[in-house]
Amino acid sequence: MSNDETPIRFGIIGCAEIARKISRAINLSPNSTLYALASRSIEKAHNFAIQNNLFSDSLKIYGNYSEILDDPFVDAVYMPLPTTFHLHWAILAAEKKKHLLLEKPTALNVEELDKILDACDKNGVQFMDASMWYHHPRTGKMKEMILDSKLFGQVKAIHSSSSYAPGQEFLENNIRVKPDLDALGALGDAGWYCIGAILWAMNQTLPTTVTALPNVARNSAGVILTCSASLYWEKEETVATFYCSFIAHETMDLRVYGSNGTCYLYDFILPFGEDSASFNFTSGAKFVDLHIGWNVKPQVVEVTSQLPQEGYMIQEFASLVKAIKFSRSKPESKWPHTSRITQLVLDAVNKSIDTGFQPVHM
Amino acid sequence: MSNDETPIRFGIIGCAEIARKISRAINLSPNSTLYALASRSIEKAHNFAIQNNLFSDSLKIYGNYSEILDDPFVDAVYMPLPTTFHLHWAILAAEKKKHLLLEKPTALNVEELDKILDACDKNGVQFMDASMWYHHPRTGKMKEMILDSKLFGQVKAIHSSSSYAPGQEFLENNIRVKPDLDALGALGDAGWYCIGAILWAMNQTLPTTVTALPNVARNSAGVILTCSASLYWEKEETVATFYCSFIAHETMDLRVYGSNGTCYLYDFILPFGEDSASFNFTSGAKFVDLHIGWNVKPQVVEVTSQLPQEGYMIQEFASLVKAIKFSRSKPESKWPHTSRITQLVLDAVNKSIDTGFQPVHM
Repeated sequence: MSNDETPIRFGIIGCAEIARKISRAINLSPNSTLYALASRSIEKAHNFAIQNNLFSDSLKIYGNYSEILDDPFVDAVYMPLPTTFHLHWAILAAEKKKHLLLEKPTALNVEELDKILDACDKNGVQFMDASMWYHHPRTGKMKEMILDSKLFGQVKAIHSSSSYAPGQEFLENNIRVKPDLDALGALGDAGWYCIGAILWAMNQTLPTTVTALPNVARNSAGVILTCSASLYWEKEETVATFYCSFIAHETMDLRVYGSNGTCYLYDFILPFGEDSASFNFTSGAKFVDLHIGWNVKPQVVEVTSQLPQEGYMIQEFASLVKAIKFSRSKPESKWPHTSRITQLVLDAVNKSIDTGFQPVHM
Repeated sequence: MSNDETPIRFGIIGCAEIARKISRAINLSPNSTLYALASRSIEKAHNFAIQNNLFSDSLKIYGNYSEILDDPFVDAVYMPLPTTFHLHWAILAAEKKKHLLLEKPTALNVEELDKILDACDKNGVQFMDASMWYHHPRTGKMKEMILDSKLFGQVKAIHSSSSYAPGQEFLENNIRVKPDLDALGALGDAGWYCIGAILWAMNQTLPTTVTALPNVARNSAGVILTCSASLYWEKEETVATFYCSFIAHETMDLRVYGSNGTCYLYDFILPFGEDSASFNFTSGAKFVDLHIGWNVKPQVVEVTSQLPQEGYMIQEFASLVKAIKFSRSKPESKWPHTSRITQLVLDAVNKSIDTGFQPVHM
């Protein structure tokens, strides 16, 4: 097999629910293959493989995380572990020269993330967090239209939300709200997307200040179930707000307000369906005479896709890994940078909450 | 003519651009008639009547505001004067027993508004501000669905915007940005709607705190061109944010996030078209298996209308006036209350801006 045809061999570390979706994506993506699977017990890994039709003679099954990292045929790992365990296992993966696709939130704070990124850097491995929506072709099309100064102009304001309401049992017992497992709660799980979307709209520029809003709700263990924040870019005079929650109806909004246009969608994290996705774009809207209506209505921009968005993510990640493995390319710095500034803003929201909603200067 | 068939006779005080739209609505509404018109000069009033096909032998034309108030046949006045002049002329109108439909923002601050409301109260006249969107049947239908606890649940968060970009000449010279005419700038002209929409979603309950966000832009005279704020209801743990601007593309968003559903629209202040209007509603949305899509998409709820929304407003106002005039009813307190709490929050936003974005307790 030539290098071009050699698929990147993925190992999955941790058989979380989300790993079902990613294992499917690894098999759908043309340049990757699911090579190995590790759980804390061999039975759990085995059952996961069977339940998801992944089992084959060539699939390696490991009953702990260390062995999969020692397997020399594993090129890259996808790691959907609880956030608390990222620091240890992500660094170990990098040290074992495994390229790293890490679930979000990437770490409990940026100090931890920096240690992970440092390990990736030292070991020459690609880092990417598993925020899938960046990789959907719809996202690229939106960016193209937002960057069109005639169509859209400058970004003036942004609003985003990420919420779902999984119910009372989840709010007390799910991994995502356990202080020893995912201490960032809804801010880490849902707010991560809002912060990422806002920074995406601002071309990955850090805001001047980050200020949490007072609507913080916590569970009995003190983990955040709901919060909001505003971000402000002084030079651009741009403001962004977001709302994230485990106790509100399913939403995933991104609305970008420009000087000449408006771009928005309600399924930015996960499109309503897999085959095609759309967003709304309005440009040059004015009142008609007598203010009895608008001259234009929002345009629905449809974007078709050959793969689900997580398939595009795997394809992009595997292609970067291939370039490193076969063409001695350097890891792409855009992805660790994107994760890092997202984590920085997330930390600032937390700090603002802890200091009674004071603005945190970045 | 029986009382039921007697139309309410409107006088318009001030030939602003918006008066064109309202004069049309007065003639469209079945229970009202345009009886008189006043401007600062008789020529201006005359030309306005001719240009808008209002001129007839029965239309009274006045070259000043006092005379129209002295006309005993005028039942009610619509007053689209610059905000600075509301205090004087609105009180005078009430004292002359004219029912008062007052353009928004109602006053420069709540102290002024209270004097106006007090005059209306003492003289037994109906007060209403001219926010048209409350009167569209779409607004009633949205409220009905939001109040359905199964469909929507509790309101958890709200986001609203009101923006348009009329250009550089406007930003320095228009009445709406003149400190001696409309000192509240974009907060008064555009933010009024956002605040009103947020309070509408919260059943006219005042928030616990109001905090302006730092993205304040002003023109050379110091009048606000852009601002944002967050509102917080402590008991309900609900947060609302809004963005208003004269330097961003035309938007008028209202998005209400509930525990079981989501309700939203992008033309809440002025529907895209006159014949029908719609909003989006989603309830019970969940991810489908493997998180590859949603189980439901937003439902588009269409609401047809017989009148433009300003026609419904005039009809509602005239019907209240009729009840007072012919059936000795008392003025409806809902409308002055709605205006007053909107003005209270608007004042709080201003105060928060003036105190360096500190929260203002209500």
